[in-house]
Amino acid sequence: MRVFQIQDDWGMDHLQVATRPDPKPGPGQVLLRMKAASLNYRDLLVPSRGYGSFTGKLPLIPISDGVGEVVEVGTGVTRVKVGDRVCPCFHQGWIAGAPDLERLTQTLGGPLDGTMADLMCLSEGGVVKVPAYLSDVEAATLPCAALTAWSAMVTYGELRPGSRVLVQGTGGVALFALQFAKLLGAHVTIISSSDEKIARAKQLGADAAINYTTTPEWARATREITGGRGYDHIVELGGEKTLPQSLRCVRPGGTLSMIGVLSGGMLAAPLGLVVTRQVRLQGITVGHRDGFEAMMRAIDQHQLQPVVDRVFAFEALKEAMAYLKSGAHFGKISIRH
Amino acid sequence: MRVFQIQDDWGMDHLQVATRPDPKPGPGQVLLRMKAASLNYRDLLVPSRGYGSFTGKLPLIPISDGVGEVVEVGTGVTRVKVGDRVCPCFHQGWIAGAPDLERLTQTLGGPLDGTMADLMCLSEGGVVKVPAYLSDVEAATLPCAALTAWSAMVTYGELRPGSRVLVQGTGGVALFALQFAKLLGAHVTIISSSDEKIARAKQLGADAAINYTTTPEWARATREITGGRGYDHIVELGGEKTLPQSLRCVRPGGTLSMIGVLSGGMLAAPLGLVVTRQVRLQGITVGHRDGFEAMMRAIDQHQLQPVVDRVFAFEALKEAMAYLKSGAHFGKISIRH
Amino acid sequence: MRVFQIQDDWGMDHLQVATRPDPKPGPGQVLLRMKAASLNYRDLLVPSRGYGSFTGKLPLIPISDGVGEVVEVGTGVTRVKVGDRVCPCFHQGWIAGAPDLERLTQTLGGPLDGTMADLMCLSEGGVVKVPAYLSDVEAATLPCAALTAWSAMVTYGELRPGSRVLVQGTGGVALFALQFAKLLGAHVTIISSSDEKIARAKQLGADAAINYTTTPEWARATREITGGRGYDHIVELGGEKTLPQSLRCVRPGGTLSMIGVLSGGMLAAPLGLVVTRQVRLQGITVGHRDGFEAMMRAIDQHQLQPVVDRVFAFEALKEAMAYLKSGAHFGKISIRH
Amino acid sequence: MRVFQIQDDWGMDHLQVATRPDPKPGPGQVLLRMKAASLNYRDLLVPSRGYGSFTGKLPLIPISDGVGEVVEVGTGVTRVKVGDRVCPCFHQGWIAGAPDLERLTQTLGGPLDGTMADLMCLSEGGVVKVPAYLSDVEAATLPCAALTAWSAMVTYGELRPGSRVLVQGTGGVALFALQFAKLLGAHVTIISSSDEKIARAKQLGADAAINYTTTPEWARATREITGGRGYDHIVELGGEKTLPQSLRCVRPGGTLSMIGVLSGGMLAAPLGLVVTRQVRLQGITVGHRDGFEAMMRAIDQHQLQPVVDRVFAFEALKEAMAYLKSGAHFGKISIRH
Repeated sequence: MRVFQIQDDWGMDHLQVATRPDPKPGPGQVLLRMKAASLNYRDLLVPSRGYGSFTGKLPLIPISDGVGEVVEVGTGVTRVKVGDRVCPCFHQGWIAGAPDLERLTQTLGGPLDGTMADLMCLSEGGVVKVPAYLSDVEAATLPCAALTAWSAMVTYGELRPGSRVLVQGTGGVALFALQFAKLLGAHVTIISSSDEKIARAKQLGADAAINYTTTPEWARATREITGGRGYDHIVELGGEKTLPQSLRCVRPGGTLSMIGVLSGGMLAAPLGLVVTRQVRLQGITVGHRDGFEAMMRAIDQHQLQPVVDRVFAFEALKEAMAYLKSGAHFGKISIRH
Repeated sequence: MRVFQIQDDWGMDHLQVATRPDPKPGPGQVLLRMKAASLNYRDLLVPSRGYGSFTGKLPLIPISDGVGEVVEVGTGVTRVKVGDRVCPCFHQGWIAGAPDLERLTQTLGGPLDGTMADLMCLSEGGVVKVPAYLSDVEAATLPCAALTAWSAMVTYGELRPGSRVLVQGTGGVALFALQFAKLLGAHVTIISSSDEKIARAKQLGADAAINYTTTPEWARATREITGGRGYDHIVELGGEKTLPQSLRCVRPGGTLSMIGVLSGGMLAAPLGLVVTRQVRLQGITVGHRDGFEAMMRAIDQHQLQPVVDRVFAFEALKEAMAYLKSGAHFGKISIRH
Repeated sequence: MRVFQIQDDWGMDHLQVATRPDPKPGPGQVLLRMKAASLNYRDLLVPSRGYGSFTGKLPLIPISDGVGEVVEVGTGVTRVKVGDRVCPCFHQGWIAGAPDLERLTQTLGGPLDGTMADLMCLSEGGVVKVPAYLSDVEAATLPCAALTAWSAMVTYGELRPGSRVLVQGTGGVALFALQFAKLLGAHVTIISSSDEKIARAKQLGADAAINYTTTPEWARATREITGGRGYDHIVELGGEKTLPQSLRCVRPGGTLSMIGVLSGGMLAAPLGLVVTRQVRLQGITVGHRDGFEAMMRAIDQHQLQPVVDRVFAFEALKEAMAYLKSGAHFGKISIRH
Repeated sequence: MRVFQIQDDWGMDHLQVATRPDPKPGPGQVLLRMKAASLNYRDLLVPSRGYGSFTGKLPLIPISDGVGEVVEVGTGVTRVKVGDRVCPCFHQGWIAGAPDLERLTQTLGGPLDGTMADLMCLSEGGVVKVPAYLSDVEAATLPCAALTAWSAMVTYGELRPGSRVLVQGTGGVALFALQFAKLLGAHVTIISSSDEKIARAKQLGADAAINYTTTPEWARATREITGGRGYDHIVELGGEKTLPQSLRCVRPGGTLSMIGVLSGGMLAAPLGLVVTRQVRLQGITVGHRDGFEAMMRAIDQHQLQPVVDRVFAFEALKEAMAYLKSGAHFGKISIRH
């Protein structure tokens, strides 16, 4: 089968198309013919071994997200059948419950092989069925970006109608967070560097928006939006540069979902604001399969439309990655196998 | 009545004994004859207006914690009666539920007058009855230090028998956290700069201890204690200098209670550890009256002994504060009126 | 002032119009000129002293729900000002947190005087501001019926987009439960005895409906709706006759909100279904003020329209009660002062 | 291998010793040499097919609880190794998270084969390691009785130091509930029909006790114990006859863990007490593997001693069952293989 893999050594130069033998499903396993993949910011860091210090070995098939069709099942498989369209779970071993080291580290796209392959062989426990109305390139966006947003907004979010949410940016996680927060009846503010992206976010349901290029002191500008009350929940995707402002506009007792490190990887902020206002900073790293399945039911009920910015061909993986790096996108970048 | 107050201007020099007219309880209010007070780290910052930017006005009676006897009640009072011994609540307006700005900012010892007065006049809703077995200097330690520890360990702690907890230091909050975690059946590790304090903490129930002076890389040293699993909960009292090590020894999915800023007031740590290990940082600022009353029932049931290091006379407030600042204490420093 | 009151003895015959002196607000109190009231099933039981064994004394002004305008405030009042339109809280003493006997028993319309009076004098802590867009007869429906539904669906509901909810009937609580569940993104089934009411419930957002007169085995009929999975949450308003069927169509691990006793007041069902399927039965009795205020924010954000079936004049209280008893209504029955 | 099995037809007469071929572990499976088993009330109902309407097929090896040593592992097994001593999980498919039909119905001792066999072959995911200090007959008591008590007291219990708990009886679940509630710092009342059992329960930590034979109105008698406040949590093991009294002595907002049906299988009680006092009835059916492992860590930390009343030989299964049925036991009845 055809794969993309990082081989011989780490680094983008070593990310190449290659051929591997077709896998065969063992007992309890399923074989998927992959239809599409989708990129996350994490995928840009893996080739240079930059994300954490995971003990990945080479060669490694990159990219965490995708969708495929079950083409063969091993003995004893009951969760899915041939012909089902499924997404692989990012965390292959996290079915439900609290995270632990093992549940958090068996992840696709490094250290485990990812979705840039014609075929994937996985445990039946590591896949989730996809609603029929979604296209392949839409379905491929769900395992990391959508589930991260779901975990932040639903599993840990404590949101309710009337809650005030601030979402940073208009990337993949940000737009899913916007969409899920709206399904929950919350009031959502988006910050973005582009008026055009803001206009599109409003079409997706954003109730308010601030251009942080023209309004660098965006935290101050939110006071009018929240009536001085502050946000119940902020989806913190910027990291180092956004955190100090986020702490100024979250309400006492509110929560920051710590997800992204786009503007820098150090937590640096006045600790007093966290302590005296009893703020919660909740790290979010994708989520478990129970959450994935609950999200799929919600998506199916509401026929939610994932926002796909551009679709690249399988061979154009590196161009797709460069486009993601540019930050020009609105929503997700997918790859058709 | 005799009071200590910060008058004319901010600063320790302006903290002086003075006289005020005796207050009279209005409808719904109670008058307390104060028996004892107790110091917290916050009390050291208030005279120089250093803790947050609260809008306190002068003159201000300092010190948040204390205990008194009800000597007169206004019309309509039903929660307490003359002769009851009660602690004032630090948060005078936070009865229960989630915090908000108003609930968090109506606090004794600044901006509201504190406990260094012969008499205090408070709303009947702002006091809590004290178990009979406690001495006055013991009871005086409960409103801030004990309730902060209770909120961290019980209200937000999600502890259970078998949980692993790490507590930093042996000050007032630290020892209450140790005692409450033990009541909950948790396994508790203490870090301290002194072998003598460690020995005393073990007598109070600590299961393990590390001297961070002789073992500066204490996070590494905990691996053996937790079997490599990490702590479920860390009571983060050090702040700037301890946080990076805390993030290395908390388990994936674990919680840090953010309480103290003893070693510096900036949150500064690698954000990736928070995100990829799904750690929660939970700011804690004392707690509500429902929690205070629940804590009192627990304390009474278990006849828990607050650890009082030294007792000073009312006039010796400044000496007591200097002693707190020295860090030589083990547990609480109280003042007898 | 003009009032309706139960006087001399219990019983509907003793419910009469009468005159009382105008009250004056004391310190911390507010005086309301009442604009409208609204009926609940509980109000039918109070005149015959039938609901619980509360120690109400006569004369008693009945009816729990209403809305009024603040026309005077006592000294020290800060939560509201003259001219504000507010709803009295059903539970006058429950601000937040877990219920206790005192919080649950200080209730309007018995044992405390209710809303059928020209003027009400209450603690400032016992009222909540009303969104401007609501009419008086709409606002009057909120304190019991809407807050009960909010507590069931939001405070205790653990609902999320994709959750499946079943609501019994189309009375006041039922329709608010439907509306709140839809705001949360849930999938909602209604059961009703009337096709016409079903048609109206669908206009309010119901996703599915069953006529339990033509389909007495309605629990069996839900299997198709839930794909055999069962309901995550059932708003149990019928009581004795509906409970056995509810237990058959709730999912394992699901919740029944126990609210109503319309079809009989005995809990009677096979215990094994509760135990082996780990079902939760959660009693719901209105809710606290924090919930009321959160609900008001949600209602205001979504400009939610309470469903008012009919409006009666103040003098027509008994006709309004008879109409409620008939069960012909769809939504709430209000009274204009 | 030697087994006990229900064969040919349902009924105690058809429960007999028989021989089956030794099983071999497939991929991901482990083979256990069973050391001990232990009885639950459920085991008395299975032979007559009385517990629920599960679709068990014959022949069926009965009894849910036991312990064994891993004597062989299939390919790919990583959770355990040969020589480990493990308990099988009652729910073979419930690792963590909320229950669903599949997770609740794959249970040992019917419909799946149980522990009365020399050898058991299970998925590696269906076993949990046992603390070394426990004897085999002690360890065998843990999978159902202890985990049910843990789920009631810890997972769903919301207990804290100072909580008041009432436990019904002195059977297996009851004594584990007592022990876990004490580990959590709660105050525990036991009701029992025997003064001798009460004396033994007090040795295990019970703070108060009532003999319900000599004090049939035990609910009234608890008022003094709880100071009129009621119980935060009642472990409801009696069922039909105890429920009405439990509802009278649980506090408003309190919880009943619905576990047992010893005195009758119908839920029959005044619904009004549940609604107006906002009581929660929480069905409990054993628990998930995450809970089992957390419980094992707690048991190991505290070197908790399961209470084993009598130990029978493998061949004496029927005598052991008759003894359980008699109700004369205090704690658990185990069987040595």
